[in-house]
Amino acid sequence: MSKWVAGIDIGGTNTVVGLVNHKGLIAYRDKLKTEDYATPEELVKAICLSIKKGELQLEVRVSAIGVGAPSGNFYHGTIDHAPNLKWKGVIPLASLFVKASGIKTVVTNDANAAAMGEMKYGAAKHMRDFLYITLGTGVGSGIVANGQLIYGHLGFAGELGHVIIEKDGRICGCGRQGCVEAYCSAPAIVFTYHEISKTKQEITATEICELAKNGDKYAIETFNKTGDWLGFALANSVAHTGPEAIILFGGPTAAGNLLIDPTQNSLEKNLLYVYRNKVKILRSSLPESDSAILGAASLV
Amino acid sequence: MSKWVAGIDIGGTNTVVGLVNHKGLIAYRDKLKTEDYATPEELVKAICLSIKKGELQLEVRVSAIGVGAPSGNFYHGTIDHAPNLKWKGVIPLASLFVKASGIKTVVTNDANAAAMGEMKYGAAKHMRDFLYITLGTGVGSGIVANGQLIYGHLGFAGELGHVIIEKDGRICGCGRQGCVEAYCSAPAIVFTYHEISKTKQEITATEICELAKNGDKYAIETFNKTGDWLGFALANSVAHTGPEAIILFGGPTAAGNLLIDPTQNSLEKNLLYVYRNKVKILRSSLPESDSAILGAASLV
Repeated sequence: MSKWVAGIDIGGTNTVVGLVNHKGLIAYRDKLKTEDYATPEELVKAICLSIKKGELQLEVRVSAIGVGAPSGNFYHGTIDHAPNLKWKGVIPLASLFVKASGIKTVVTNDANAAAMGEMKYGAAKHMRDFLYITLGTGVGSGIVANGQLIYGHLGFAGELGHVIIEKDGRICGCGRQGCVEAYCSAPAIVFTYHEISKTKQEITATEICELAKNGDKYAIETFNKTGDWLGFALANSVAHTGPEAIILFGGPTAAGNLLIDPTQNSLEKNLLYVYRNKVKILRSSLPESDSAILGAASLV
Repeated sequence: MSKWVAGIDIGGTNTVVGLVNHKGLIAYRDKLKTEDYATPEELVKAICLSIKKGELQLEVRVSAIGVGAPSGNFYHGTIDHAPNLKWKGVIPLASLFVKASGIKTVVTNDANAAAMGEMKYGAAKHMRDFLYITLGTGVGSGIVANGQLIYGHLGFAGELGHVIIEKDGRICGCGRQGCVEAYCSAPAIVFTYHEISKTKQEITATEICELAKNGDKYAIETFNKTGDWLGFALANSVAHTGPEAIILFGGPTAAGNLLIDPTQNSLEKNLLYVYRNKVKILRSSLPESDSAILGAASLV
């Protein structure tokens, strides 16, 4: 008999629910609008109802719940001061799930969950040392070393989006200056495009990506500069954990080689010689939310 | 009956041999001049003779040998292109030991070995997540996460001395520019002192340390700036592995709070808020070569 678990990906905009078997098959999926729920309790209740629905449809029972959430703390089962969620403070997420469903629940950071999914089913399959970087509204990351996710002493390891790459640089959402996130997130890409094109037109990173693919020189230059910054940051990260590969995930990676090539070039240029030509940059091989669902599911 | 192992610390200048029991007692010590030996084979032979001497003196048998060496590669048992040793290329160190002694041998990077020693017997006792930074001719490091040393895919993880902190900055021995090593090693401290005092007098980092303790304003300013750079670098490192503490080791740490205080201040100033006031900077609590001997011994 197959064992089923629920993998949940809570994001600032959407929350995705999946029921996953031990082979990594996501047999049931559901999507909720995170912002529709006034309190974490209400969101958790809605997720548990959705899980129940999935159990009925598949005629199975879920034995555990794994949750990936922004600022998710693996040790405490909490969401700690997430800047991209409207709920402030420390949210005892795992307890809320247990209270609502009676099912054992494990919580981790969304990027960590996605890194786990990638290791079990995606581009990092069979790798024991890799970096997983999510480019989106922010820049998140999961670090796997010795085949294990690194959580750090307080559960906050792998904040590569908040490594400072430009002293006195751009203001970052975290309140400091010069973080990777201020140069390589989707909003940062828009900022760079405005700088280069000397325009202020309303545009999204996705649209800049389309422009670049159609040969727009400002858009291409935007991805070149983004890759320059990202590659520099990653060269310093490689000096920390010596990974086999770096997996990029998220909207801006749709630019493909327009982003990957300048990133790899900048990486090589800035790497310590012992690492040169030895660290691959790959795109995630899993569809959008699958890595987080599968990763969250694989926590339990 | 006590089990005995040999812990060896190979440095550019000296090689230290220790015989260690399972309680971490170094009951026999010997020192060789690394540079006295023309080939790695001759050094290994001399080390094995010294081990033999120790066995006779203590009336014990050594069951395994652990070696910490610059650019030591744990996976391959080799020294790979060590810039601070006169022997070039890849040296099959573990094989040389087995050939000369018949005893099972494990090799690792010298800073990694020292980090292990610190975790078993020193300032990092009972810690599962910490950074170990050696300040000397170069800047080395060992990263422990989830209670394990991080070796990385190729065995070269933890090169924090070669994280770039100043783009287009000082030339580093590695051939690049702006590395931590070019700002925080003992020779870099001398360089900074020359810059600040606008002199070119021949002086060592140890002498600058003495000057600082006696109130010399240039020397004090030198350690302030060194701490500024080091704290900045460490703030970025904390964002990677989220350690409980950072342990500093090596000659320049003799400056005590003249180095620790500006380092801690710069660390706090540059840390992402979730880590603030949560990461201690400590000095190694083990005597000079003991951490490496004990760490090398604990490998086996």
